[in-house]
Amino acid sequence: VISLGIDIGSTATKAVVFTDHILGQSMTPTGWDPKKAGLQVLNEALDAAGVQQSQVGAIIGTGYGRISLPLFTRRVTEITCHALGAHFLHNATRTVIDIGGQDCKVIALDEEGEVTDFIMNDKCAAGTGRFLQIMAAILDVSLDDLGALASTAEPVALSSMCTVFAEAEVTGLLARGVGKAGIAAGVIDTVAQRIHALSGKVPLMEGVTFTGGMARNEQICHRIAHNLGTRLHVPANPQFVGALGAALIGQDLLTSPSSRKGLRHDPSQNLC
Amino acid sequence: VISLGIDIGSTATKAVVFTDHILGQSMTPTGWDPKKAGLQVLNEALDAAGVQQSQVGAIIGTGYGRISLPLFTRRVTEITCHALGAHFLHNATRTVIDIGGQDCKVIALDEEGEVTDFIMNDKCAAGTGRFLQIMAAILDVSLDDLGALASTAEPVALSSMCTVFAEAEVTGLLARGVGKAGIAAGVIDTVAQRIHALSGKVPLMEGVTFTGGMARNEQICHRIAHNLGTRLHVPANPQFVGALGAALIGQDLLTSPSSRKGLRHDPSQNLC
Ligand code: SF4
Repeated sequence: VISLGIDIGSTATKAVVFTDHILGQSMTPTGWDPKKAGLQVLNEALDAAGVQQSQVGAIIGTGYGRISLPLFTRRVTEITCHALGAHFLHNATRTVIDIGGQDCKVIALDEEGEVTDFIMNDKCAAGTGRFLQIMAAILDVSLDDLGALASTAEPVALSSMCTVFAEAEVTGLLARGVGKAGIAAGVIDTVAQRIHALSGKVPLMEGVTFTGGMARNEQICHRIAHNLGTRLHVPANPQFVGALGAALIGQDLLTSPSSRKGLRHDPSQNLC
Repeated sequence: VISLGIDIGSTATKAVVFTDHILGQSMTPTGWDPKKAGLQVLNEALDAAGVQQSQVGAIIGTGYGRISLPLFTRRVTEITCHALGAHFLHNATRTVIDIGGQDCKVIALDEEGEVTDFIMNDKCAAGTGRFLQIMAAILDVSLDDLGALASTAEPVALSSMCTVFAEAEVTGLLARGVGKAGIAAGVIDTVAQRIHALSGKVPLMEGVTFTGGMARNEQICHRIAHNLGTRLHVPANPQFVGALGAALIGQDLLTSPSSRKGLRHDPSQNLC
């Protein structure tokens, strides 16, 4: 049986076609038209999988934009999907840290991958991909290069958590001749501090999986792991974890839920 | 006896020379050198008053930058100074709402002008002058014109309180052809909502004085008064209230505190 998960996030839209493993996937920026983005990744993921839409038994939608598409068999919160996706990829996961483009969340889950607690920040840009993007722009480096830059110096502590105030603070530091590398490290540390503050409410249990676009950057993973004093499991495609979780729910609808437990996890993960 | 109050805020630095009334005052942007700004307004205010520094019995410092100048007789928090200044200008004041360049606060005071409770936000740019400045820039109007623009249309409700997310939201609204005037009104309403949220912790008691740079703008005052469902007393020079309060503390040091109570309040205030 084939299922399809679509995660329409505020920044990126992702799709995963799944049977007992991932058959195909696709990602595109969400832009201002979540419906269009959703349809695009649907078709691209089907193409990548070499599968016709008629062969798909269930299409599950998640992410803030899931209301925009009428074709879903079911809609599920991104919290549930992230937990299931992370648990599938790494069975020992008890905590998911997700840093998305415009939110961040800490999710606690049990041995079955069911959510037991979570906290999400989607009201404040601090601690999100958006914050890192804005800081990278001020430092005149790409978001991809921010981590590498940060790895070359000791962090400069920033006093502002707020994106707007941190922007002014970093501009002031640059004007005073403070090196970019130390500022870059300080910037990533404030994201870790933000996650730390969230995890005061949902404690980090051992077995932490780090998902979302920021997790692609190895140096960012290292700094955050170091700051939180924990190891982070990083899936090979950390942005697709929510869409994968949605596809897994589709599998549960089409077959007995217990059959999912026999599936193997992705061997290509990293440990920071 | 002559006293001098200096309020070194994050955005603007203000000085007031005082005897039984204001003899002179001066204001300059704080910039990156609070010490320099403090010395500049000190000298300018003395010039405006036609007074020598040697004639001044006490110089009181307030505002976040008060640590930067060594010459103060005493340093006092801006909360205390705003309360005293507002109480002096309008004896019936029981609540001060202050919207500064980078903070906002609600202060409760008693009949003597003593602070009984307060709440301050200086960690988040939402609800501050900085927020309005950024929004005005996106709407391509000056901060001074934002209020007038807002008065010409019904407000468009914004869903984002965060400065960063509101920036993206407003850009999206403009791209969809939504009128600037309604957005301007919506922008000011989010500041009122922020004050409203703060005043959930420190209730607004009747007799509300509105201070800080934003209070200079009549249309902004009207929208905030309307939103909060209260009348706002607006002093003629709302940015100088903290520096005035500091100068009043200087008077208390030089004379008996009770003599201040006989002083008349500023007749040139507005009521929104
Ligand atoms: S702290 Fe800054 S980034 Fe966070 S909500 Fe406030 S304005 Fe936005």
